This record gives sequence, structure tokens and C-alpha cells, in this order.
Amino acid sequence: MTIRIGILGYGNLGRGIEYAIAQNDDMELVGVFTRRNPEDVKTNSNVPVYSASELASMKDKIDVLMLCGGSATDLPEQTPHYAKDFNVVDSFDTHARIPEHFSNVDASAKSGGKIAMISVGWDPGMFSLNRLYANAILRDGNDYTFWGKGVSQGHSDAIRRIPGVKDAKQYTIPVEAALESVRACENPELSTRQKHTRECFVVAEEGADKAKIEQAIKTMPNYFADYDTTVHFISEEELKRDHAGIPHGGFVLRTGRTGKDGEHNHVIEYNLKLDSNPEFTACVLTAYARAAYRMNQRGLSGCKTVFDVAPADLSPLSPEEMRAHLL
Amino acid sequence: MTIRIGILGYGNLGRGIEYAIAQNDDMELVGVFTRRNPEDVKTNSNVPVYSASELASMKDKIDVLMLCGGSATDLPEQTPHYAKDFNVVDSFDTHARIPEHFSNVDASAKSGGKIAMISVGWDPGMFSLNRLYANAILRDGNDYTFWGKGVSQGHSDAIRRIPGVKDAKQYTIPVEAALESVRACENPELSTRQKHTRECFVVAEEGADKAKIEQAIKTMPNYFADYDTTVHFISEEELKRDHAGIPHGGFVLRTGRTGKDGEHNHVIEYNLKLDSNPEFTACVLTAYARAAYRMNQRGLSGCKTVFDVAPADLSPLSPEEMRAHLL
Repeated sequence: MTIRIGILGYGNLGRGIEYAIAQNDDMELVGVFTRRNPEDVKTNSNVPVYSASELASMKDKIDVLMLCGGSATDLPEQTPHYAKDFNVVDSFDTHARIPEHFSNVDASAKSGGKIAMISVGWDPGMFSLNRLYANAILRDGNDYTFWGKGVSQGHSDAIRRIPGVKDAKQYTIPVEAALESVRACENPELSTRQKHTRECFVVAEEGADKAKIEQAIKTMPNYFADYDTTVHFISEEELKRDHAGIPHGGFVLRTGRTGKDGEHNHVIEYNLKLDSNPEFTACVLTAYARAAYRMNQRGLSGCKTVFDVAPADLSPLSPEEMRAHLL
Repeated sequence: MTIRIGILGYGNLGRGIEYAIAQNDDMELVGVFTRRNPEDVKTNSNVPVYSASELASMKDKIDVLMLCGGSATDLPEQTPHYAKDFNVVDSFDTHARIPEHFSNVDASAKSGGKIAMISVGWDPGMFSLNRLYANAILRDGNDYTFWGKGVSQGHSDAIRRIPGVKDAKQYTIPVEAALESVRACENPELSTRQKHTRECFVVAEEGADKAKIEQAIKTMPNYFADYDTTVHFISEEELKRDHAGIPHGGFVLRTGRTGKDGEHNHVIEYNLKLDSNPEFTACVLTAYARAAYRMNQRGLSGCKTVFDVAPADLSPLSPEEMRAHLL
């Protein structure tokens, strides 16, 4: 039984899902759907490109619709809208607004008898799962999440908005000494500055005041002021050559105590090193598409998160194969 | 609603569960059950100690029975036996015999309408979960599991059986260079010798031939012959002072490729550093006791593994709390 997938939105994430589906024999990409003119969208495979408006007539042709819009404005509208008619998966990542998003999506998915899997990816997503597992196991302990080394799109954008900046890329870097202290079960209380540094590669416009740009970056509230920030001015060619990728990653740690008097320390660590943030995120969404489809086939509906999905539903292997080869 | 727990078998694992239950407000330890004379068993808390035979009359007083016997002979018999009358959790860890154990336990648990959660712990258990998640996400990749640094009970026992050995402790140690090669996405093919080394601390009997003991260890088939093994002869006092603990841990890694031509590499790593192997294992079993109880309350029955359990069922938090604080 092949799972028929549709992709709504063909940016980095949508392309990543296209690649991921090609790695999964039990899935088939039905089409890419776009709000742009379909003729302007060229896909990597031979999959047809449709206008998003055509989704309304393709309810029976798609088992799971992957929503690849942004969390700021697209998904809060798209996920509740499409969850009425399709099993959907989204990567909604505005942590503070997840409860509100969940409740909107849940009502819609239940009304249509569909599964809507929200906030899938690596954070929220795999990192959330690791926080949950580690907290359920080590009840008396401390949680730490570090991000990076990786490109923060939001911080790169913030630099680009500074007058005199032509282009920029910002890397978030975890502080190695902080990581080591956590791993040594020292249970440090870490300030924002102690956890991450920020490294910026900036292309200045000709004649721009570089000292002023550097000052504007380093004192920018919320984005940079609370961090030790390094600014490098480089040429446009160097930016293209050395900083074209979208790598990311990070670390989830929980340390905890057990025993008669808490005399034994334990460290649970999960870490990711990703050459391509959107392609890895796409792989996670694709695995959860399988689960969304299976759960709906079993008659389930409503909004779900990674917390609600039994791991077995993510794997193409049979239960017997899983027990024999992965357990 | 308090989950009422019974512990069958009061060794290191049973004691670990006793400690773990004290860290979980939604659980209560009803009693420790033993095949020994109950009067000879002193628990750390004030919990009553019963003879194992009394379990037959306590079916209504226990929500989940934790089976703390060994995998070689105890659990293959105990888990099917008790799964008829109790929700049970075991740590059956003979990987090759899991399919057989599953099938025996499944029939029994289904006949009694109970949940039997088998092979819970960290390997099998948390390591298995991480293998499954990573394989579902990175479809084109390679898996690696390293164990240690930690005490292998089986290898320590094997040394103790050598004539002239009074006592011994064996540590399994992952080879750092192999780990680094995996993390660098070099996809090495690693022989047994290239993955782990073995370090042995041996107390010889007075007058024993140490050279002969060392030779016997290093050439022992299966246990040591395929490894680079180091042997240290130490005094009984040193063994007691420096090697009394039961630490363990290890690493699960999967590296994989994504993109149009597999041009992007990704590394997923999960690692554990445990001061006490049995106490950490006990914490995992205790979290899965919560899931066993909840799944049975929802009318489910049969044999389950960590693959079948939605993560949310492990946590004492409500779904709303989980989404707000862990997602």
C-alpha cells in the first residue's frame, strides 16, 4: 500500500520532502501545490505542479498533505484549513503559540475525521521527544538544550535589515565549556551569554561605515545584545563560497540523580549535526506522514504531536522486523 | 490516581526500582516479592516483603508487577506466567531470543487481558528507540552502537571462573578513534577489535601464576580473543576501593545522506553516561510501568515493547503541560 503525498509550498522544506519521499519505497509524491503560478515552479523530479486551489478537488488522491509554509503567518491559517479535508503534517515552530495552534487544528481535524500532526521537525520535534523521554526517566534532574553550530535565519535576516548591509549569515555556536560542565553533572545555572556565542559574516555595501554596522549588530536587543558576538566583514564572493549552506544542529541533555541518597549521577545526551537543516526537517516530517496515515487508517483523528505517536508507526518495517533487528 | 507497583526479585534492579518509585509521586510501592525467605530480605524503605507465592492472592492490589529476574532462566518463565494476572514490565535483554519471548508473553498477556512490556531498559530499550527513530528519519545511512565505558557483568564473571582468580572487574571501552570516524561521516566498516577495548582488573589468589591468568584471559574465545585486552593485577582492597561501582553507558549513532545526490551528511547521536547501570535501567522500567498501566486502563492488552508506546504515556505530566513545557 503506497502512501500518496502532496506538498504544499515549494521552498527549502518542500524540496527536502521531495528528496525524502524518493528515499521511502512505501511513498509516492502525487504533486507539488503552490500559491505561485505553477508554470513558474520547476521541481527536481517529474512530479506535476498544481495551483494550491486545485487541492479542493484532489481530496481522494492524497493520503497526507505536507504543509511547508512558515510559522509566522502561513501555518496558523493553513493547518486548520487543510486539516478538515486531509491528513496533514506541519513544522509549526513558534514554541509559545503551540497550545493555541493545537487547539485550532484539533477542532478542525476532528470535524473532518483526519489526523493533523503539528510541530514536527527537530526542535520542536526530535529535541522535544528527547526532553520528554529523559524527564520521564530521570525524575530528579536538570534539562539543557543547546543549539548549533548552525545558521539562524532570523538572526541573519536581522543583520540584513541594518543600513549598509548587503548580505549576512549568522551562526549560533554552543559554548563548549558550558556543554562540558553540563556533561560533568555540575548542574550549572547558565545565563544566555554563557550558553551560546554568535558569529556573523557580513557583506557591507561599498562605502558603508563598518564600525557602525558592527556596533549596530552587537547592541541589537534580543538578537545580539545578550551574547558575545563576533562580526567578520567579508566579500560577497566569500559569503557565496564559504557560507552558502544551511547547517544546524544542537544538543539536548538531561542530568539526574538516583539511588538511596541521590549518590549516582546520569547523563542522557542527544545531539544532531546537520549539513542541511531543511532537508533533515523534511526527513522527520516524512516519517511522521507515515504515522499520520496509519493512525488515520486505524480510525483516529484530531491534532497530534510527536508525543502522541508510537515509534513503531514511523518505521516502514513490520513489527516482527523491528523487534528482530532494531530492539 | 496512584499506580500501585509490586517488585518481584530484590537484587540491584529491584532496589533501583524501589528508589525510582520514591521519585514518582503518582506511584506507590505495595510490596517486594521474593523467592527467598521474606524475613531474610531487608528493604531500604518500610515496604513489606512477601513470599513470591503470595502474589496469587494479591491480583487486585497491584497495578503493575516489575519482574526483576535474569534473562537467562528467570524471565523466560516468569514473564509469561505473571502476564496472565498482572500488567508486567521486564528487562529481558537476550536480543536473539526476543522474538520467541515476545510470542510466549503475548499469548499469555492477551489471555488475561493484561499489558506485558518486555525488553525495557537502555539496550534493549532507549538504544533500540534511538535506532528506530534514526532509521525512520535517515533512510539512507549507517548504524553504529558502542557500549561503555562500563562494567560488563558477563565478562567479569568469565574472568572469575579462571583458576587462580579471586575476584575481577571488566570494563568495556569504546575506541575513541572509531567514534570520531563515525561522527565525521566516514562510514567506517569496523571490526570487533576496532570498536571496543577491554580492560580487566584482577585479584589473583596468593601464589597464582599471573602470567598464566593473563594469557587465559586474553585468549578466551568470544569474550576476549577478538579484542585488545589489558589486564591489571591489583589487591583486593584496591578492587573494593576503586571498582565497586556498576557504571555503564554507550553511544547510538546513525549517519545518513539527503539531498538531490546525497550531498548532505547528517549525524544523529544518542549517548548515556551512567554511574549505576541497574538504577538507570530501573528508572526506565518505572516510566514504562506508567505506560503499561495507562494502556491497560484504555483496554489494551498483549505484549508490547518500547516501540509500541507513545512517549506521552511515559510522562506524569498532562498533555497540555507537555505541549507547553517540553514540545
